[in-house]
Amino acid sequence: MTKGSEIDPRQFRSALGSFTTGVTIVTTRDASGRDIGLTVNSFNSVSLDPPLVLWSLAKNSRSLEAFANAEYFAVHILAAEQEKLSAQFASNTGDKFAGVDLVRGHGEIPLLPDCTARFECKTTYRYEGGDHEIFVGEVVVFESFDRAPLVFQKGGYAIAVKKPKQAKEQEMSEDATFRKDFLSHLLGVANAFMSRSVREAVRERNMLEDEYYLLAMLGMEDGRTREQLDAVMRLTGRRMGPDLVEKLLSKSLVQESEGGIFLTEAGRRLMIEFMAVAKSVEDQALNGIEHSEAQFMKQILRRIIRNLHTDSKNI
Amino acid sequence: MTKGSEIDPRQFRSALGSFTTGVTIVTTRDASGRDIGLTVNSFNSVSLDPPLVLWSLAKNSRSLEAFANAEYFAVHILAAEQEKLSAQFASNTGDKFAGVDLVRGHGEIPLLPDCTARFECKTTYRYEGGDHEIFVGEVVVFESFDRAPLVFQKGGYAIAVKKPKQAKEQEMSEDATFRKDFLSHLLGVANAFMSRSVREAVRERNMLEDEYYLLAMLGMEDGRTREQLDAVMRLTGRRMGPDLVEKLLSKSLVQESEGGIFLTEAGRRLMIEFMAVAKSVEDQALNGIEHSEAQFMKQILRRIIRNLHTDSKNI
Repeated sequence: MTKGSEIDPRQFRSALGSFTTGVTIVTTRDASGRDIGLTVNSFNSVSLDPPLVLWSLAKNSRSLEAFANAEYFAVHILAAEQEKLSAQFASNTGDKFAGVDLVRGHGEIPLLPDCTARFECKTTYRYEGGDHEIFVGEVVVFESFDRAPLVFQKGGYAIAVKKPKQAKEQEMSEDATFRKDFLSHLLGVANAFMSRSVREAVRERNMLEDEYYLLAMLGMEDGRTREQLDAVMRLTGRRMGPDLVEKLLSKSLVQESEGGIFLTEAGRRLMIEFMAVAKSVEDQALNGIEHSEAQFMKQILRRIIRNLHTDSKNI
Repeated sequence: MTKGSEIDPRQFRSALGSFTTGVTIVTTRDASGRDIGLTVNSFNSVSLDPPLVLWSLAKNSRSLEAFANAEYFAVHILAAEQEKLSAQFASNTGDKFAGVDLVRGHGEIPLLPDCTARFECKTTYRYEGGDHEIFVGEVVVFESFDRAPLVFQKGGYAIAVKKPKQAKEQEMSEDATFRKDFLSHLLGVANAFMSRSVREAVRERNMLEDEYYLLAMLGMEDGRTREQLDAVMRLTGRRMGPDLVEKLLSKSLVQESEGGIFLTEAGRRLMIEFMAVAKSVEDQALNGIEHSEAQFMKQILRRIIRNLHTDSKNI
């Protein structure tokens, strides 16, 4: 516990960081016609009628004078893809507006593209707020777009995903049986379903699964040696076997050159066919699952893979 | 685009909803000594020195008078597990504090447990904010805890997960090759790593993988018939084969009774051994991955399984 007079700004800031926020860029135009903008996460809504929003600006900010004198400002709620723009406007070096496709709003203030919502505001109140000044603006125009928002939490960028429902009690209490909520079980079943169509496509072409895996590895990175390919297969519990490469060579799906194994044109065409099958299953699998959720899931899978094998960068 | 005078409160509220926030409960004690509290997401930080925070309260709120007259209020940033408490304090019916384990802070204000951060504040300013009043408080004491915060976005509860790094350009542009960020690829590799130890344990006991899968299915649900077991195995692309049950019968791992196949005591003990192996790998796989992230991942895997097979409830 940290008491009054002994409040440490760093600890205080860190405690505040557990309050998740979106990320906004607030822009205006100064008296000389120069565009001003900065990244702000102290934004929040205030009132519906009249429509008011607020944000706080450090009193020692070089932008304070511009915002204090401007009639209008714009608040842009950033999309998940705008992390780079957020960093650009958080920095004090360089031309923040460089390369940004602007349009002009009320009072010629600069409006940024590709955000999830954009509010043009007329400055209504400016309030004392310690080392910051609180700006309250009345929204005169707003637009909103169907894009996943960028999130800030504990000092880093994040995305928000809908909160999972609590697991059913029945599922939690099966102890002496193989639990259905074991991650390994769910992964196994999901993987079996995901790979079924590709496995069928492989069978239809009279190929062995291992031939397919070898082709897929080459599809990811051409030109590996037999030893490298064998090492990767071993990682996932497979063996290349002495004649696996020979089989693919005899089918003209791969060729050997200076010790490296490469896909032939026929091999590449075949991989594209398999990819189309895999992509189609993937689309079906992800039906109703948002892009940000799928990205998140892939991120966790990568972390799991790293946890289980430290030398997995070539998988 | 929605212009000034024609701003629709519903559309405005929805556009504001794309600004992600944490969820707080703000509490105080009224002049008669009654505890007051409500769920608030208009909270934000204002100043580090002095340490100031703010939040907005509707002027028509029944709690306005209490907060207007109170010297102190407390802000609790809720943890991901406190969704129920959030709903309890957002509702206007019932005793909000029922069943909550309170402690008392400055001015005897009620402090709630199990949040991610808690700020006791002295009301410093009250500002005009349209249909709301803006409360600015100076933080006199705060505490923070290492718990995942609850998040509110687009009208629903969420959790925030660290933003995945942008996939490298090279990975994104490989079109004629099998892409490493294919979900099916990541699932396959993660599954291969996750199942490797169990597969080794199976081999060590001179068992076939299919024998293990059959045991695992019985571990989840005893007493299924041969036909039912075969149907489930087919779903994941396996076949039970004519003598698979016989093998397990001869090893006394299963027994047959009235057409159903059941695990014997030995079979159950063996499954518990395999479970221990699987659990140990799972712990390693989830190292550094938060509980909420793992739960979320399992939820997505279940949705993928449902998407790929509508009759997958017995898997």
